[in-house]
Amino acid sequence: MKWHFEDFIYGSFDGSVTTFAIVAGAVGASLSPVIVLILGFANLAADGFSMAVGNYQATKARIEFIQKERKREEWEIDNMADTERQEIRDIYAKKGFANELLDEIVKVITARKKVWIDTMMKEELGLIEDGRRPLDTAISTIVGFVSIGMIPLIPFVFLYVTEIHLSVQNSFLYSTVFTGGAFFLIGLIKGKIVKKSLIRSGTMTLLIGAIAATAAYIVGTLLGNLIK
Amino acid sequence: MKWHFEDFIYGSFDGSVTTFAIVAGAVGASLSPVIVLILGFANLAADGFSMAVGNYQATKARIEFIQKERKREEWEIDNMADTERQEIRDIYAKKGFANELLDEIVKVITARKKVWIDTMMKEELGLIEDGRRPLDTAISTIVGFVSIGMIPLIPFVFLYVTEIHLSVQNSFLYSTVFTGGAFFLIGLIKGKIVKKSLIRSGTMTLLIGAIAATAAYIVGTLLGNLIK
Repeated sequence: MKWHFEDFIYGSFDGSVTTFAIVAGAVGASLSPVIVLILGFANLAADGFSMAVGNYQATKARIEFIQKERKREEWEIDNMADTERQEIRDIYAKKGFANELLDEIVKVITARKKVWIDTMMKEELGLIEDGRRPLDTAISTIVGFVSIGMIPLIPFVFLYVTEIHLSVQNSFLYSTVFTGGAFFLIGLIKGKIVKKSLIRSGTMTLLIGAIAATAAYIVGTLLGNLIK
Repeated sequence: MKWHFEDFIYGSFDGSVTTFAIVAGAVGASLSPVIVLILGFANLAADGFSMAVGNYQATKARIEFIQKERKREEWEIDNMADTERQEIRDIYAKKGFANELLDEIVKVITARKKVWIDTMMKEELGLIEDGRRPLDTAISTIVGFVSIGMIPLIPFVFLYVTEIHLSVQNSFLYSTVFTGGAFFLIGLIKGKIVKKSLIRSGTMTLLIGAIAATAAYIVGTLLGNLIK
């Protein structure tokens, strides 16, 4: 299986925001810690699965779109070869080729259909079959959603499992801090992949996450009060 | 703004599944129609926003990754030009070029740094700066999430707004049918983009959606019963 970090980041961000919203809502509705946990883990399972399936569909749609464009290029080469030959000519003229050398290049490229189509796909349409398989991107999404998305629940696991006398309000306070930690962690992973400053990337994601989490908090507590 | 249908599909699928889960949970908990609506629209706002932000981050991470790879190629061209020149040679040999023609091509491509780097990016790494801007993909996501994701709520809007005497149970039945319709619609849009059979694409998405919605339904009703 090939790991896709963009999808992992996407899933983990959505997982931690929605879990935090559920925690805020459940605490707002004065539900017991065990129900906070059940609601939280159920959301991780259901929303994580739904997001992974949505991701699967989007990746598949992208692949099918590229295949369709490839078929169209193939048809154009079969049915309007002169136009397509001229397009190859334009592409290589733009790269700095001219005169007999350009003639030769066009001759060689259009001599092999696969090379011809590949060139049109990459250079004219900017499309590359990048080998993103729907199952890989879906798994990367759900692993991110569940693993990072469960971080806001950790204080409630402690509250429920251990004998530590944490109040629900204190657990929620810890949960907020943990959620912030989750955002910072996502930023660190992102910074690591794109090889940018880790601190800067972590802080940026923490700030963006804080905005999303605040929106989720407001909605969550409003709803919690409605149910109460 | 450029429209991104993959992201629209991704968002709309996730939106309709999670809204349906909320409807199932709220009906399971015997909450009133107005609360079903408030919960549903609040989820559309909060989860839609969170997903759009996650999408923004993922698209941005992808762009930064490509920029990082580009910088690396640039560094390699500056510091180990011979190896990189040989790579261009290998790439064009694979396309069917040989002898003096190949020599000439390598000379022309490596004469201009931008063309050299572009060729390495596309041909060696399979990376194209495809112009996906984070704001565009995020907007495509949230528009899909909210517009298609509100479909499961429509029967409850009718129940609440009009004088039609629908019971909550009947509204839920209609909501299930509407959610199925939403999945079929997503499949139609997908089929339209990738130019495949609309009926087939619609039916496939309906089936996949039914599985995700069933999982969401089970979780939603279990939770609804817990809250009750």
